[in-house]
Amino acid sequence: MTATRPADLMDVRATNLALVLRHVRVHAPCSRADIATATGLNKATVSSLVTELIERRLLRESGLVGSRIGRPATMLTLEGRPYAAIGIEIAADHLNAVAVDFTGTRLLTWRRAAPGPDAPPGRTVAAVAALAARVVGKVTGQGRTVLGLTLGAPEGAVEGLAALLNRSLHDPAFEVVVEPAAVLAALADQRERPGCTDLVHLHGGIGVTAGIIADGRPLRGGRVGHLVVDPGGAECACGRRGCLDLDLGLPGLVRGVLGEVDVPDWGAAVERIVALAQAGDATTVGALTAAGARLGVAVQTLADVLDPEVVLLGGVLAPLAPWLVPAATAGLGRRPVVAPSTVEPNAVALGGAALAFARLEEGALPATS
Amino acid sequence: MTATRPADLMDVRATNLALVLRHVRVHAPCSRADIATATGLNKATVSSLVTELIERRLLRESGLVGSRIGRPATMLTLEGRPYAAIGIEIAADHLNAVAVDFTGTRLLTWRRAAPGPDAPPGRTVAAVAALAARVVGKVTGQGRTVLGLTLGAPEGAVEGLAALLNRSLHDPAFEVVVEPAAVLAALADQRERPGCTDLVHLHGGIGVTAGIIADGRPLRGGRVGHLVVDPGGAECACGRRGCLDLDLGLPGLVRGVLGEVDVPDWGAAVERIVALAQAGDATTVGALTAAGARLGVAVQTLADVLDPEVVLLGGVLAPLAPWLVPAATAGLGRRPVVAPSTVEPNAVALGGAALAFARLEEGALPATS
Repeated sequence: MTATRPADLMDVRATNLALVLRHVRVHAPCSRADIATATGLNKATVSSLVTELIERRLLRESGLVGSRIGRPATMLTLEGRPYAAIGIEIAADHLNAVAVDFTGTRLLTWRRAAPGPDAPPGRTVAAVAALAARVVGKVTGQGRTVLGLTLGAPEGAVEGLAALLNRSLHDPAFEVVVEPAAVLAALADQRERPGCTDLVHLHGGIGVTAGIIADGRPLRGGRVGHLVVDPGGAECACGRRGCLDLDLGLPGLVRGVLGEVDVPDWGAAVERIVALAQAGDATTVGALTAAGARLGVAVQTLADVLDPEVVLLGGVLAPLAPWLVPAATAGLGRRPVVAPSTVEPNAVALGGAALAFARLEEGALPATS
Repeated sequence: MTATRPADLMDVRATNLALVLRHVRVHAPCSRADIATATGLNKATVSSLVTELIERRLLRESGLVGSRIGRPATMLTLEGRPYAAIGIEIAADHLNAVAVDFTGTRLLTWRRAAPGPDAPPGRTVAAVAALAARVVGKVTGQGRTVLGLTLGAPEGAVEGLAALLNRSLHDPAFEVVVEPAAVLAALADQRERPGCTDLVHLHGGIGVTAGIIADGRPLRGGRVGHLVVDPGGAECACGRRGCLDLDLGLPGLVRGVLGEVDVPDWGAAVERIVALAQAGDATTVGALTAAGARLGVAVQTLADVLDPEVVLLGGVLAPLAPWLVPAATAGLGRRPVVAPSTVEPNAVALGGAALAFARLEEGALPATS
């Protein structure tokens, strides 16, 4: 249903500025006339909007292109230099950070060891804040203005983190937002698939969570870790039996495939699983096939309830996808497609950075300098 | 994400007309000054919008109300007389039709026997068209203009029905839309709960389907009939075991509770189940409790994936709710609330009629006469 906010002339201007930005992002390089044709706005309006966007340093002119009829047109493209957005992921035992400019160009990709999931929140926040401060220092040292920082955290840890992080960063001028990791990863996947309105990103970490894009927009929910995928399976701490997390969460996955319980480094354990599977180790491939079948039960449930076009495997599920997907899709119809996310291992951090620019493309433009 | 359509001045006018209509629907009677205060539009704009809506016979002045300061204000309310919208449900073995006016007043509620789910589509369409023609005749005979007709059908039957129905009604001037029954029922529930943005309507008929409202908007999906709720259960035609439909769809429900296989009249069978349960028949209550536990597994899955505030039981599940809900909610937390829909037995038809007016309140106003 329509929002209940009244439309006024400022809204019209902001809506149309955002419309031009989105058009150029997808179609650059393009001319003012191209924008007018594609959006239905008249040429004088487009010229005025483009002038403002150039003044705000979001667009720039990129040269002349001759056309078969009329004089050469000045082409427009996104301006990458002035702004940056930052995304940071709190993963199982490390932090991922990326900074991107407005054209989508990656400015840096850092991975740092971090306190694990059992560490007190204060230590995790301190580690995130220290990393964030270094990323901010790096990009501002390049002369860029940071437009936003988004932190992707396990679903249960989201509450309160933004306030803590703001304080640790001494209330920066840019917006600090905390979102569930899987939702950010789904937004990053969506950016790679402009025509896709319904997708799910299944994010594997200590537990499995789902980021859901339905009808083009992120949804709440996505707590798939306790979907029952093995009714005769072991009892879960939640009181049910055979929950998805028992087989596909990192502790269960590593125990089930490698037989190891006390794991000092999740990343290294996953790498060993991949190496064994690539070498054709029958036990490993068999265990991954069994896990894939369990994953398939959850995928089937998501297909029934949400009917997504595609289910993308992320986090630690991404490198294991070659062995999980065949079993996971054995009972499915043609929809959904199940595939590894193409933006891993940085889906969460990239989705976080993209979210800051998405707010800009919804009309929240930075002030003119 | 924002729509990619440009905003122009006509959009602003239509958006604001719709905004005023929605405000009056919720807050009538109210004055022009009330509308200006609540919407943030200036008083001259509100006066102009109200004048147009009175000309279009969507609002009317309902008298003067004195205030403590200043002169008495003219109050506005929705105009019910000129327009009607029609909703028709194809239920298991009957049709439900309602017509409502723009104020939400029910103009008629008809129930007619209909070909069952195994009848050829042509017979069902003919029965719907005959009923629709009589409803249209009735309300146009009262001097009303029909703004739209929405048919609620089982999910699999939606495709192609609108074209057939349009032809049978000789391409009427109003819009004919066919939507999944459960989605319409969910829209009707949502209209009863203005603040609720996330709800699911579980609609019981030959099969069980879900109408999902997420973040205020209806979603695709909702195929819950084959969620596995009893992993050791009987094999389903879909290839899985223990699907929800086997226990909660009408044939399975009536067989499980009454032990009857060849049922000539589903409505009468459900009435007998209710009568037995009300009389405290232990076998009946036990069978409904078992079915309720299976329903609870599906509700838990919906809670995990979608996190709705409330799950409403509709169709044949509504009259059985007193015996299904306790078992269905035994393992759930405080959210979602599970309760019978308050708009049954006409949720689907009322949702269909509401949809026609919802399009109006999104800016698709009828032409001035």
